[in-house]
Amino acid sequence: MKKLINRPEGVVSEALQGMAALHPELIRVDEAAQIIVRADAPVRGKVGIVSGGGSGHEPMHGGFVGPGMLDAACPGAIFTSPVPDQMLAATRAVNGGAGVLYIVKNYTGDVLNFEMAAELAAAENIEVVSVVTNDDVAVQDSLYTAGRRGVGVTVLLEKIVGGLAETGASLEAVIDLARRVNEQGRSMGMALTSCTVPAAGKPTFELGDDEMEIGIGIHGEPGRRRVKLAPAAEIVEMLVHPIIADLNLEPGERVLAFVNGMGGTPLIELYVIANELAKILRGHNISLSRSLVGSYITSLEMAGCSITLLRLDDEMIRYWDAPVHTPALRRGM
Amino acid sequence: MKKLINRPEGVVSEALQGMAALHPELIRVDEAAQIIVRADAPVRGKVGIVSGGGSGHEPMHGGFVGPGMLDAACPGAIFTSPVPDQMLAATRAVNGGAGVLYIVKNYTGDVLNFEMAAELAAAENIEVVSVVTNDDVAVQDSLYTAGRRGVGVTVLLEKIVGGLAETGASLEAVIDLARRVNEQGRSMGMALTSCTVPAAGKPTFELGDDEMEIGIGIHGEPGRRRVKLAPAAEIVEMLVHPIIADLNLEPGERVLAFVNGMGGTPLIELYVIANELAKILRGHNISLSRSLVGSYITSLEMAGCSITLLRLDDEMIRYWDAPVHTPALRRGM
Repeated sequence: MKKLINRPEGVVSEALQGMAALHPELIRVDEAAQIIVRADAPVRGKVGIVSGGGSGHEPMHGGFVGPGMLDAACPGAIFTSPVPDQMLAATRAVNGGAGVLYIVKNYTGDVLNFEMAAELAAAENIEVVSVVTNDDVAVQDSLYTAGRRGVGVTVLLEKIVGGLAETGASLEAVIDLARRVNEQGRSMGMALTSCTVPAAGKPTFELGDDEMEIGIGIHGEPGRRRVKLAPAAEIVEMLVHPIIADLNLEPGERVLAFVNGMGGTPLIELYVIANELAKILRGHNISLSRSLVGSYITSLEMAGCSITLLRLDDEMIRYWDAPVHTPALRRGM
Repeated sequence: MKKLINRPEGVVSEALQGMAALHPELIRVDEAAQIIVRADAPVRGKVGIVSGGGSGHEPMHGGFVGPGMLDAACPGAIFTSPVPDQMLAATRAVNGGAGVLYIVKNYTGDVLNFEMAAELAAAENIEVVSVVTNDDVAVQDSLYTAGRRGVGVTVLLEKIVGGLAETGASLEAVIDLARRVNEQGRSMGMALTSCTVPAAGKPTFELGDDEMEIGIGIHGEPGRRRVKLAPAAEIVEMLVHPIIADLNLEPGERVLAFVNGMGGTPLIELYVIANELAKILRGHNISLSRSLVGSYITSLEMAGCSITLLRLDDEMIRYWDAPVHTPALRRGM
């Protein structure tokens, strides 16, 4: 195992300390509670937005804490759900009196723990509503999931809903938009290589030198099928056609296209993928209205990519374009 | 070789097409000339800023084209200098009548080709001045270099000088700042793995499972020494102490700290590195005033990192903080 770490058991807490040291103007880290909180939280009168999940998917979610996106993130151990105590601490830290939204990726542990945290928060008279993302078209149920897995749309949802919440919108309006973004977004991913969880010390799964996994999950869970390596153009077809079909995308519609790297794939390859994606969308007369390219929801050093398409409406575009100031996403001109 | 590509010989041009398709509001790509140009270039009265070099280091340089940073980038074949014709085409495309600055990393091919382009531009009455970056403290001369190699400081220089040029500053002022940033910045890198140039189809060099290369170049050129794997804390010491010594950093000074990934290293590891760096700087009473963490000057899918420290002055801070709107760097709040 070749990694830039000290001890496997220290990776998550040391990375949090590194974030705190390098971004003090944006975030603070509560080491005891193991949460990342927006520096100026709680913001009075603003809906607080909390997300979280296993570590190993950086910059998601901690890199998305800051004005215009999340108010707090709860990182679990690598590929392991955070616990309700973390979520409750985050809820208290961001409660500005207007309610709190939990953004939860659909994995059994995350869903249960966020539900428990919501009950604990309710007992403290903090109104909490969860929205669960489940955008992965690859498989119906899977290793850690009842129903579809939550993947790339989570990043887009956190940005768009974070933009709306920043305006002082009501919890009801924030929930409505969050549900709509989840409903209108679909994703599918693939891997060229496995990744190695530090505490395990060996690859999560084995892939032959001439093989790839189509429909991979972000923890290395099995996808749809294992096939021979193929050119980028064929890979993108395997990912995009199920998405277009599932979303019922029609000619003339406009989408946000998100080409995501799994952690070990260089940007030049993501742009080769992006080029194939753009060609397919042109062929369907679907308008590529907004885009995001980079490694935003990752699986440690896995090589591979995922594609997310989000059917856009005017409100989503407005808050996608809104200013954001977090360690991993910044915008404002 | 496992890569998300179609054919090795198409990678660079297809990735450029992908950039053009996904970022039409920021850049345009002249496919015949093989250059990336700011969408609104030339900007009248503004010093044009052109950089370039071999591909395989993405997002550098094409991802840095846009308001507040570069006016054009010239990507060569992978790890191969672009040619003077590209640079001349870029120079014409960005010439707003106030002169043009070339930002050139110190590799023999790049330096010669940018010199030749400057002569061709002079024959067309376009005033061009080159600033060469040479911030790598690892080795004096190397495989492709007379003198020190240009690495991480190039990213910081392009951002800072781009910010100044955006204000309409004179070519002389832009050159002065560019030279100062190069003089005040130093870097050193390391690798856990090699990378594979697509056209070669096999790793550039071999590293044992228990080895790493300290002082690696961004094309896989040999560094200072090959040593056994070590914890992150020791790796950071090996990289930072030569930088601090070479810069003569004194207690009380303030720096920008840039923790860069080589392409295949996940962000969580970069933050473990960042944490160790922050501890060393605190130990020297050096103020970590600004930071950048991520994979910005890469070597394809190489696993590893580099550290750059830049001694800051007020002007550098002003233009580091200035708005920027490029595919890879955005800021504005």
